[in-house]
Amino acid sequence: MAFLKPEAIDLSHHLSGTFPTARHLSPLKGLQKYWGRPGIISLAGGLPSPAYFPYSDISANILVPNSFPVERKQEESSFSWLWKLLGADKEKTTPVTVPKYPVRPEDINLATALQYGMSAGLPQLQKIVKEFSDKVYSPAYENYTCLLHAGNTDAWNKVVITLCNPGEGVLVSKWTYPSAMATMQPFNIKPVPVEIDGQGMRSDALRTLLTEWDEAARGMPRPRVIYAVPIGENPTGTTTRVARKKEIYQLCVEFGDLQVEDDPYFVLQEGEYVPKSMRGRQTQASGTGIDDEAKFIASLEPSYLKFDYQGRVIRLDTFSKTIAPGSRLGWYTCNPMFAERLERAAETSTQAPCGFGQSLVTATLQEWGYEGYIRWLKGLRLQYTLRRDYFVDALAEEFQLTVAPGTAGMWEGCQVYTGSAKPKRSVTGYFNEKAPISSPLFSFVPPTSGMFVWLKIHFDQHPSIATTAKDLEMKLWIELAEAGVLFGPGSMFSPTQDWSSERSGHFRISFSNLENDEMTKSVQIFGKVIREFMGNL
Amino acid sequence: MAFLKPEAIDLSHHLSGTFPTARHLSPLKGLQKYWGRPGIISLAGGLPSPAYFPYSDISANILVPNSFPVERKQEESSFSWLWKLLGADKEKTTPVTVPKYPVRPEDINLATALQYGMSAGLPQLQKIVKEFSDKVYSPAYENYTCLLHAGNTDAWNKVVITLCNPGEGVLVSKWTYPSAMATMQPFNIKPVPVEIDGQGMRSDALRTLLTEWDEAARGMPRPRVIYAVPIGENPTGTTTRVARKKEIYQLCVEFGDLQVEDDPYFVLQEGEYVPKSMRGRQTQASGTGIDDEAKFIASLEPSYLKFDYQGRVIRLDTFSKTIAPGSRLGWYTCNPMFAERLERAAETSTQAPCGFGQSLVTATLQEWGYEGYIRWLKGLRLQYTLRRDYFVDALAEEFQLTVAPGTAGMWEGCQVYTGSAKPKRSVTGYFNEKAPISSPLFSFVPPTSGMFVWLKIHFDQHPSIATTAKDLEMKLWIELAEAGVLFGPGSMFSPTQDWSSERSGHFRISFSNLENDEMTKSVQIFGKVIREFMGNL
Repeated sequence: MAFLKPEAIDLSHHLSGTFPTARHLSPLKGLQKYWGRPGIISLAGGLPSPAYFPYSDISANILVPNSFPVERKQEESSFSWLWKLLGADKEKTTPVTVPKYPVRPEDINLATALQYGMSAGLPQLQKIVKEFSDKVYSPAYENYTCLLHAGNTDAWNKVVITLCNPGEGVLVSKWTYPSAMATMQPFNIKPVPVEIDGQGMRSDALRTLLTEWDEAARGMPRPRVIYAVPIGENPTGTTTRVARKKEIYQLCVEFGDLQVEDDPYFVLQEGEYVPKSMRGRQTQASGTGIDDEAKFIASLEPSYLKFDYQGRVIRLDTFSKTIAPGSRLGWYTCNPMFAERLERAAETSTQAPCGFGQSLVTATLQEWGYEGYIRWLKGLRLQYTLRRDYFVDALAEEFQLTVAPGTAGMWEGCQVYTGSAKPKRSVTGYFNEKAPISSPLFSFVPPTSGMFVWLKIHFDQHPSIATTAKDLEMKLWIELAEAGVLFGPGSMFSPTQDWSSERSGHFRISFSNLENDEMTKSVQIFGKVIREFMGNL
Repeated sequence: MAFLKPEAIDLSHHLSGTFPTARHLSPLKGLQKYWGRPGIISLAGGLPSPAYFPYSDISANILVPNSFPVERKQEESSFSWLWKLLGADKEKTTPVTVPKYPVRPEDINLATALQYGMSAGLPQLQKIVKEFSDKVYSPAYENYTCLLHAGNTDAWNKVVITLCNPGEGVLVSKWTYPSAMATMQPFNIKPVPVEIDGQGMRSDALRTLLTEWDEAARGMPRPRVIYAVPIGENPTGTTTRVARKKEIYQLCVEFGDLQVEDDPYFVLQEGEYVPKSMRGRQTQASGTGIDDEAKFIASLEPSYLKFDYQGRVIRLDTFSKTIAPGSRLGWYTCNPMFAERLERAAETSTQAPCGFGQSLVTATLQEWGYEGYIRWLKGLRLQYTLRRDYFVDALAEEFQLTVAPGTAGMWEGCQVYTGSAKPKRSVTGYFNEKAPISSPLFSFVPPTSGMFVWLKIHFDQHPSIATTAKDLEMKLWIELAEAGVLFGPGSMFSPTQDWSSERSGHFRISFSNLENDEMTKSVQIFGKVIREFMGNL
C-alpha cells in the first residue's frame, strides 16, 4: 500500500477559491504548540466547568449483536422483526454506561464528550471508524484520514463548500437524491446529469460528456466533482460493480475529477432477488450465511476507496442505517488535505457531532467490538433482504409478473420484471400464465442493495399520454394518496426537471419500514388504483 | 401584544437572493396535505425500521435542580463546586429514562427521536423552549416562532446564508467573537466593525456609520444585519443595557436592519463586582438570592425580543452554557418567515439536532419542570459569580489594584481597575496604598455577565512600544505560555486585523473552568511574567 504524497498528485487546485474554507480558529499561527501542552493552565477557552453538566452518567440498554438471524430459516421467518417490534420475542440486551469522569484516562466520559470538543470527534470513536474503514474498505493508499461528521447530508454540504465554486457543476446520475441537489442550490452549484443504466452512472456517457464538454455552450467549466450513491442508489436502487467503478475512477484520473461516494446503503447488499417459487426453504439469502468477517466483507461490492491510489475519493459513511438516523453521526474517509479543510469547515458551523450521540454510539461499538458490529450488520442485511423479498413477492401476488431481459433504456440487459393485470379467471402461478398477458402497467428491476424499488409506470399505454408523463405521474400519485398509500413521486428525483422526452412516470417505493401486513395492503391498493387509472380494470 | 403580520412590515427583501434558501424537499407543492395523514400507509420515505435501532432505552442520572446554592454563605463558599468535582460532596441525582416506544402517544421515545425527524426538532422540546422564550424574553409580538438548532455556531452559519449575499457586510463590535467572523468568511460576507464602549456596540457610532455610509467608497451596500453578543460579550465581557438596546433597535427600524442576538451568557448575569474587603460575609451575589422565577427574570437585562415589535430580531439560544456544550443544541426565536427559511436550510445540512441529545435534554427538562430549570439557572449564575469574584480577588492579591472612572476610550465612565506592581515592602491593603503607585501594567472592567475578563495591557509603558502593539502582545503571550499559562490572545478577536492605531495589547481571560488553586497559580505566574516583561521587577 502506497503512502500518498499530496505533492505527487497535486489536488490542491480542487479546493474552492470563492468559498475559501475558514481559517483555523483557536491557535494563531506559531502558537499551536502550546495548546494542550501537559501541565499548562489554560484560561484561553470559553469552557464551562464539567461540574455544571447536569449528568452524573448516561446509559443505555443495547441489543446484543446477534439480535437478528443471519440465515433465512423457517423459524426465523420474515416475521421475526415484527415479533420483536411487538415485544412477543423478548429482546436480549446489555447495559452500557458513560460516566461523567473517566476511571482510566482512555475511557469515554461525559466531561470530555459533553465539553466543547474537537470537530474531528471523540478519539475513541475516530479509532473505531478508522479500523472499520481500514478493514472493510481497504483504501489503496496509506495516509487516508477518517473524520467524524454530523451525518451525510451535512457532510455533503461541507464537501460542496470545500470543493466547488459558485456557478460550477457537479456530475450526478440522471435520477438522483434530491436532498443532495437541494444542498448545492443555495451555493449556485448546478447538477449535470449523466445517463444511467442498471449499474447507475454510465462510464461511456461520462467519458463522452467530459471529452466533449463545451464550456461556452454549457456556461460553466467542465465539472470536477462526481456525486454518486454507488450502492443501492437513491432512488433507482442500482449498484455500481467493480469493473464500472474502475472505469469511472480512471476517468477521474484522466480528467482530474474527484469522486464523492455517498454510501449509506453499503452494508445493505441484499443480493439478487429470487422469485418465491424458486426459493428453497433453507436457501440462504445470498451471502448472509457467512459467519466470518473477512468472507462477509469479500461478499460486498467494494468502495471506490479500494482503487483510489491518487486520493481522489471522498467517502461519506453514516450510522443512519446501521445504528439510527437520529444519531446524526458518520465519518469521512479521504486524503489528509481534504480532511483538514473539512475539519475547518466544521469548526465554524456544526463544530463536533453531538456528545450524547457520540458517547452512546462509542459505548455501543466498544461493547460489541469489531466482530460484534460486523455480526450486527450481517443481521441487518438479512432483515432488509427479507423485506425486499416480501415486497417483491407481494407484487407477484397482486400482478401478473413477467421477467425478460431489458432491450433498451436504463435497464438494457437487466432482468426486468414487468407487471400487468392478472387475468380475471385464473389465479395459478405468475410466470407461466397461459392466458394472454394484458398491457404492461409498470416495470422494475428488483434491487440488489438498499431500501428502494424504482417503479417505472408505463404511461405510454395510457389513453391520455398526450399530456406529459409528469402530469400523469402526479395524477396517479394523488389517486394513490386518496386511496391511502404514499409512494415517492418520481419527479422529485429529477435533478433538472426536464420532462420533454419522458414517456414514463416513476415511483420510488421504500420497503424499509413497513410491517408486512401494511406492505401487503399497500400493494393491493396500488393494484386496484393503477388498474383503474390505466383503464385496465 | 401585537400579532405580527409579515405584510405589515415587509421583511422579505432581507432574504438573500444569491444564496436562495433550499426548496422544501419532501412534499412537492400540492402534495403536502397527504403527508402524515392519519391511517395513510407511507412507502415514500427512506426510514429504517425502529426495530433496528439497537437501543431498548437510554437513561441518565441527572443532578437535582438545587444542586448549587443561590445564596453566598460561609459554608457555601466558592469551593463548593470543587468539592462536588472531587466527589467530597455527594451529588444528589434523579434517574430519567427514554424508552424505545412511548407508553402514551405524547411521551418522548427513541422510535421517534432516533428516526429521521423534523428539522424543527422534537415537538416536546419545542414546547419547552417556546415556554421559556415566552416567559423569560416576552417578545413584543405574538406569532414569533421557536425552532431548535444544532448550536449557536451552526445557527449563525444558517442565518448568514439565509440573510446575506456574497460581498455584503455585517455590523459587529470592534472586538468580537472570531468564530462568528470565520463563519462568514467562506461566503465572502465581511465584518464591518462599530466602535464600542463599556456597554458594547455604541448606538451613536452605529448611527453615524449608517447615516454616512458611502456604498462606492466602501465597496459594499449599507449592511442590513447587526451581529452582537449583547450580554457578557465575547471577548470584552460588556453588557448592553435596556436604553442602549432600545436605541440600537430604533436604528434597525430607521435603517431597515436586522438584529441577530447571539446570547449564550444570558443567564450568567453576575452583577457588579464588589471588592472582597467590601463584601459582607452574608452579602448575596446581586439578585441570586431571589427565589421566585418572575423576580429572577426581572433581575436580568432583557433580550432584544422584548422591544421587537417589527420582527427584526433573530435570537440564538444555546444549551451550551446551561446544560453542556456537547449537547450541540439550542433554538432560534424569530418571526415565522425567517423561521421557515432557517428550517429549510437545516433540511439540506444538519437536518434535525441529534436525537440522543434532544431526548436526554428533553427528559431532563421535563423532570425538572420550568421552575426546576429556573432554579438550576439561578444556581449556575451564583457559581459563575463566585468564579468571577475569585479571579478578580486573585488579581487584587497579586497586584496593586486602583479603581477610577475611565476618562477615554471604550471604558469612558466605567469603574476601571488598573493593576500595577505592588510596592516591594508593603503587603497591606490594595486600594489605599500609601506608597507611590508604579506604572500601570494592565486595566480591566470586571464583567457583570459571562465568562471573560478583557485585560488591556499598557504597552504604551513598554520600552519598545516602537514595535507594534500586536507584536508585543504576541511576545508576552509566548512568555506567559512558556511559563505555563495560556490566555486568549487579544489579536484573535479583531475582525479586521487593523493594528495601525493600537497602543495596547489585550488578553481574554476565561474564569469559567479552572479550579481555584489553578486560578491563583495562573495569576501569580502572570504577575511574575508581566512585571519582568514590562521592565518593572
